[in-house]
Amino acid sequence: MKATVMFGAGDVRIENVPDAGLVERTDALVRVTRACICGSDLWPYNQMEPSATGQRMGHEFIGVVEAVGADVHAVKTGDLVVAPFAWSDGTCVFCHEGLHTSCLHGGWWARNGIDGGQGEAVRVPQADGTLVALLVGEDDALMPSLLTLSDVLGTGHHAARAARVAPGKTAAVVGDGAVGLCGVIAAKRLGAEQIIILGRHPDRIALAREFGATDVVSARGDEAVERVREITGGLGAHSVLECVGQGESMVTALGIARPGGAVGRVGLPQHEAIPTTMATFFDNVTIGGGPAPARAYIEELLPDVLDGRIEPGRVFDRVVGLDEVPDGYRAMNDREAIKVMVTL
Amino acid sequence: MKATVMFGAGDVRIENVPDAGLVERTDALVRVTRACICGSDLWPYNQMEPSATGQRMGHEFIGVVEAVGADVHAVKTGDLVVAPFAWSDGTCVFCHEGLHTSCLHGGWWARNGIDGGQGEAVRVPQADGTLVALLVGEDDALMPSLLTLSDVLGTGHHAARAARVAPGKTAAVVGDGAVGLCGVIAAKRLGAEQIIILGRHPDRIALAREFGATDVVSARGDEAVERVREITGGLGAHSVLECVGQGESMVTALGIARPGGAVGRVGLPQHEAIPTTMATFFDNVTIGGGPAPARAYIEELLPDVLDGRIEPGRVFDRVVGLDEVPDGYRAMNDREAIKVMVTL
Repeated sequence: MKATVMFGAGDVRIENVPDAGLVERTDALVRVTRACICGSDLWPYNQMEPSATGQRMGHEFIGVVEAVGADVHAVKTGDLVVAPFAWSDGTCVFCHEGLHTSCLHGGWWARNGIDGGQGEAVRVPQADGTLVALLVGEDDALMPSLLTLSDVLGTGHHAARAARVAPGKTAAVVGDGAVGLCGVIAAKRLGAEQIIILGRHPDRIALAREFGATDVVSARGDEAVERVREITGGLGAHSVLECVGQGESMVTALGIARPGGAVGRVGLPQHEAIPTTMATFFDNVTIGGGPAPARAYIEELLPDVLDGRIEPGRVFDRVVGLDEVPDGYRAMNDREAIKVMVTL
Repeated sequence: MKATVMFGAGDVRIENVPDAGLVERTDALVRVTRACICGSDLWPYNQMEPSATGQRMGHEFIGVVEAVGADVHAVKTGDLVVAPFAWSDGTCVFCHEGLHTSCLHGGWWARNGIDGGQGEAVRVPQADGTLVALLVGEDDALMPSLLTLSDVLGTGHHAARAARVAPGKTAAVVGDGAVGLCGVIAAKRLGAEQIIILGRHPDRIALAREFGATDVVSARGDEAVERVREITGGLGAHSVLECVGQGESMVTALGIARPGGAVGRVGLPQHEAIPTTMATFFDNVTIGGGPAPARAYIEELLPDVLDGRIEPGRVFDRVVGLDEVPDGYRAMNDREAIKVMVTL
């Protein structure tokens, strides 16, 4: 079968790889119908050391179940399913607590011999715990929005939850990428009254406004901090969604948090330490977040997607076939596209 | 009047200073009857640059109201009152939210011309918002425990709250100083089932056990992390109370937190950045805390102190008069005393 393999920075290829197939009794075999390129895929796209064997890619996909192992009962052949960006058994102590990304028997796509989502098919371990059946047709108009349940919508939602967004509060979203845009959706959905987006790409800002952003701050660094303070009565934002993951963006996020506020971080950190100042301590600012337990959030978010109350699929502004995935990486990296959907 | 002044590292003196007196209509004049030396006082005791004018000291005290300004109504002359370690108006948006340490019109003792608690008397700004009347006699046997409401008990409680201690959970307390010991009290009071104290001073560990600690880890660094993981089924602690404030203790605190857990930090940070690893992110560990809004907690904690359900006053293992305060600093710094009470 064909799948996406990265061989080094800027070097993404569509390769022939061994066919996916059932191995464990808890596996499902899924033929992929939709996949995504993720902002986090751009980190290796910019930094990966050359590798002769390469690295399979992709962790967001929807597909049709083609076969299931003997112990799989929650999904069946023919089901259209969405996979969250981590696989998990659904039964361990952490899954029961809703933290599926810490599943004791789970793991990550495209790592340790597991298929990636940017390919024709995927062996899904722990299928009962991982997959969620979507009761719609394979080409439903909602497909882009349903696909965001695999990662980006759940990640924006996680940022909002970690930042403790609540009705009537002020939320600030650092970053206007697809996660930031979904953060705006999530903040509005959770009742934030004022939603400030920090970003500088006109197309993304326009979409953020349609998603519910009430204010835009295009400045960066200290100037951004000052501007957010101005539009929050000098106090800062109750909830800050850090959707970038760089040291600089974390400094900004902490700088615009109101005393007693919270920063929810979901951008894969490109920094080792959290660059706080004494103000973070003296202001009692909480820092939470991490990889979103997207699996836990699918049940919560799916009804709003099906009802059309939220339209996260609008973050996809380019659609490519599998063979065009390398150009999709280039387009996202060049900021030509916000987020790329792969149709198979 | 006499008051404690620090002139540099290791140089604490009792000096004659201008008498405290009413200035604003919102002031109270309080004759100090009990004060403390705080673990945080030891940071300047070890690091302060020599100063000709010196620095007034002390932020924990109980005393008798001697006079009040025209706008003070919540306390009256003759009342025995406890002061939290920050003064606050009780009416601003942050005070209403219970975050009195961020009061828009508040401040800190012994700073910017405000008296310190380690002296004969204190002008208390914003007396209505700051002081809480204690309906007991000046020499009540509960005086040591009541005095801990000014800081150390509220600070331990804040660590436990920021670390989200809840019934049935596992709490780990990093540090066996007075704050850590009060953290044990707070963790037990909030229902933690397993309470692990990380410390190595036998007298303090013994007290921690009496306060409710169920496990003791005397190792440090990686060995401490490993040991805590062993006694928590390999998972780590739901709630970690960071009661030291050093980079090393924060690394330990983050290392022993369970995925999805929380670290509550109350030790004045001696490090600029929070030295996290990628594990902190991938485990979705939350970092919260800061200076405790002790004023907010007095109402909650006072009944338990008055009923004798908790005995935080046991952290005081030395009592000195005002003239002996310099030796009290030395004793705490040399770890001869856990915490020193000053009786005037």
